[in-house]
Amino acid sequence: MALDARRMIADLEELKALTADARGAQRVAWTPVWLKARGWFQDKVKALGLEHHLDAAGNSWSTLAGESEKVLLLGGHLDSVPNGGWLDGCLGVLASLEVVRSLNEEYGGRPPVTVRVVDWADEEGARFGRSLFGSSAFAGTHTVAADRVRTDRDGVKLEDALRECGIDIERIGDAAVEKAGAVAYLELHIEQGPVLEAMGLPLGAVTGTKGVERHAITFYGQEAHSGSTPMGVRRDALAAAAKLALEIRPIAKKHADAVATMGSVKTFPGIVTAVVGRCETTLDMRDLDAEVLAEMLARADGASRKFAGEEGCTVEWSRIWSIEPIPFDARLVEMCDEAVREVAGVSHRLPSGPLHDAAEVARAGIPTVMMFVQSLAGLSHNSAEDTRKEDLGMACEAFGRLAGKTMAWVVEA
Amino acid sequence: MALDARRMIADLEELKALTADARGAQRVAWTPVWLKARGWFQDKVKALGLEHHLDAAGNSWSTLAGESEKVLLLGGHLDSVPNGGWLDGCLGVLASLEVVRSLNEEYGGRPPVTVRVVDWADEEGARFGRSLFGSSAFAGTHTVAADRVRTDRDGVKLEDALRECGIDIERIGDAAVEKAGAVAYLELHIEQGPVLEAMGLPLGAVTGTKGVERHAITFYGQEAHSGSTPMGVRRDALAAAAKLALEIRPIAKKHADAVATMGSVKTFPGIVTAVVGRCETTLDMRDLDAEVLAEMLARADGASRKFAGEEGCTVEWSRIWSIEPIPFDARLVEMCDEAVREVAGVSHRLPSGPLHDAAEVARAGIPTVMMFVQSLAGLSHNSAEDTRKEDLGMACEAFGRLAGKTMAWVVEA
Repeated sequence: MALDARRMIADLEELKALTADARGAQRVAWTPVWLKARGWFQDKVKALGLEHHLDAAGNSWSTLAGESEKVLLLGGHLDSVPNGGWLDGCLGVLASLEVVRSLNEEYGGRPPVTVRVVDWADEEGARFGRSLFGSSAFAGTHTVAADRVRTDRDGVKLEDALRECGIDIERIGDAAVEKAGAVAYLELHIEQGPVLEAMGLPLGAVTGTKGVERHAITFYGQEAHSGSTPMGVRRDALAAAAKLALEIRPIAKKHADAVATMGSVKTFPGIVTAVVGRCETTLDMRDLDAEVLAEMLARADGASRKFAGEEGCTVEWSRIWSIEPIPFDARLVEMCDEAVREVAGVSHRLPSGPLHDAAEVARAGIPTVMMFVQSLAGLSHNSAEDTRKEDLGMACEAFGRLAGKTMAWVVEA
Repeated sequence: MALDARRMIADLEELKALTADARGAQRVAWTPVWLKARGWFQDKVKALGLEHHLDAAGNSWSTLAGESEKVLLLGGHLDSVPNGGWLDGCLGVLASLEVVRSLNEEYGGRPPVTVRVVDWADEEGARFGRSLFGSSAFAGTHTVAADRVRTDRDGVKLEDALRECGIDIERIGDAAVEKAGAVAYLELHIEQGPVLEAMGLPLGAVTGTKGVERHAITFYGQEAHSGSTPMGVRRDALAAAAKLALEIRPIAKKHADAVATMGSVKTFPGIVTAVVGRCETTLDMRDLDAEVLAEMLARADGASRKFAGEEGCTVEWSRIWSIEPIPFDARLVEMCDEAVREVAGVSHRLPSGPLHDAAEVARAGIPTVMMFVQSLAGLSHNSAEDTRKEDLGMACEAFGRLAGKTMAWVVEA
């Protein structure tokens, strides 16, 4: 199969011109710019003669029927965060388009297996705070009761925004019918981190998405006058929080790929002349190994209680959100690694810290793998997000090879 | 001189009934409730036959003329913070009233030296953020240019609020004429801290007000995705700030009475999924010894730069405000100590962390001392502020003794 990376890059640039302004991409799901991007894409696949429809959750499916009823899924997401980058999500969709375009040409419209390109609805959750919306409906892990009442910052309900786009929130689970025949899912994505760049590598094979433990941790001490309260009698909630902010680092560094982040600290009363009486913090910990993640959480919990005790404070934890680690399919990771080595000479296996629709597809029991292409400076979710053109070219070629290997495996199986 | 503490406590309770609501004292300077409190006080001193007038800065002066033209000043402030306590400030004024009331009785209206009770205007700065307003005008350290444009939260200018109370902001420096003849200033105040209570002592002699160094310190790192950014490549501004939050404590604890406080921490972007790119903190350091304070500041500055370097961050300092330490008069501190010992059996010398009008009077070159009475739980600036009645009784007696010793010293000098 002879992919043409220049066509893929031209598509990316066309989409950017259509949906970005000076601040970046504006393809926020359930908004007019997103619908415009999807219309543009639908025109392209229809021009190729592919069948196209939206499922009950708003996922966009483009099908090139093949000799076998076994289905290879390829995909990504056209939606972006506000002021987003030109590659996050849509690279996967447009690389997949290039794969079916090439297959269409090579096999005269009928490849050995059926290939479907999916553009997942609302991966980012940028407007309503519910990420992986469409892929979770596909996988059957959707949460209608919790999501129905979500509102955007203008007070518009998710339920109503969906209805505007023709989606009935009660029926999104019907998207599960799209699983029929699916034997593998492949997704190309920018890394959104600095690992490949630091190693000088264009491409990597993703071993899975890390599990996430996300908690709110509040320390309670005693507000006191900064001038009249001796150091020895203070119950400083910030001191306990500061100790934890530093201690989570060795807890994570014990493990090769684990991360732990205190992203938010709020102090109360939060004035220059008062010892902090209450300190609200957040903790986000991730690892690909569930046991490692559980151990990290237990150690952070124990450390927080020890530090609270040392500072005469108390501490309360509240889970914000969590998800288990989702390893990708071992055979597909191996094939991805091979494809990368064939194109780039050397590959690297790495877990993904950010979540992706691929995690939901893997949860649905469909063998899944992702390929990462290097991000410059690890930047994403802003207009400075970029990847070298030559790396995009290698990504296109390697993704095509991975699709070819997977089809061969599907046919043999 | 036979002071009657019950009269002083009755006055305090009368003032509370007149000017407090369920949330606490509401005697905020330049408001109707404050003017009501001052009117009530003026009626009391006029009933005693004292001369009364307001000076050019709104300070209230009540004079009992004596045999000598040398003037002993006694005072405090009737203004409070919103929802304030029943003792902060007004205890000094009403203890001073009890002293002149007793002298008036004892000497038939003409004591050996002239005694004046001053109620300083706007000690708290609660409405316009300018504390020590009246005493700074008296001392000549006032700052009209900077203060004129201060506004309250309703947008009312300080200049206009003063005019409503008959004060021309251009002329407040004329309050300096009230310094004429003054040879000493004595002020009784609640401690507003936990030191005397922890020692089980009712009273203490104040050695001076601590110098204050108040700074905004901002660490700049690199915002990064909490999931995709390995621990080893992070430039975490919170980590640098957390190190400083902990390091200021040993810096202060090296010195007996020094304090250092990080009262506010703000994280940016401040979300659970991002490494902190910018961390804004505040630092407040105080000590009675200018060299100690300067050394503490230098050590904190050095530590902040070291920690920024360790974390791949930069740091910027910006001074919010500072004032030098103001030691009180050694002879008066000794007399205060004696008076406390005579009444309470044991005394303790301690610096004041909070500032007071007495600091401005000392800056004006007038020998000054303060006496502290124990605060329960170190609380002030809220309605829970309290001091035991028996401690208020001892405070009244000891303050009377201090006034007597000071008058004797003035006569001899």
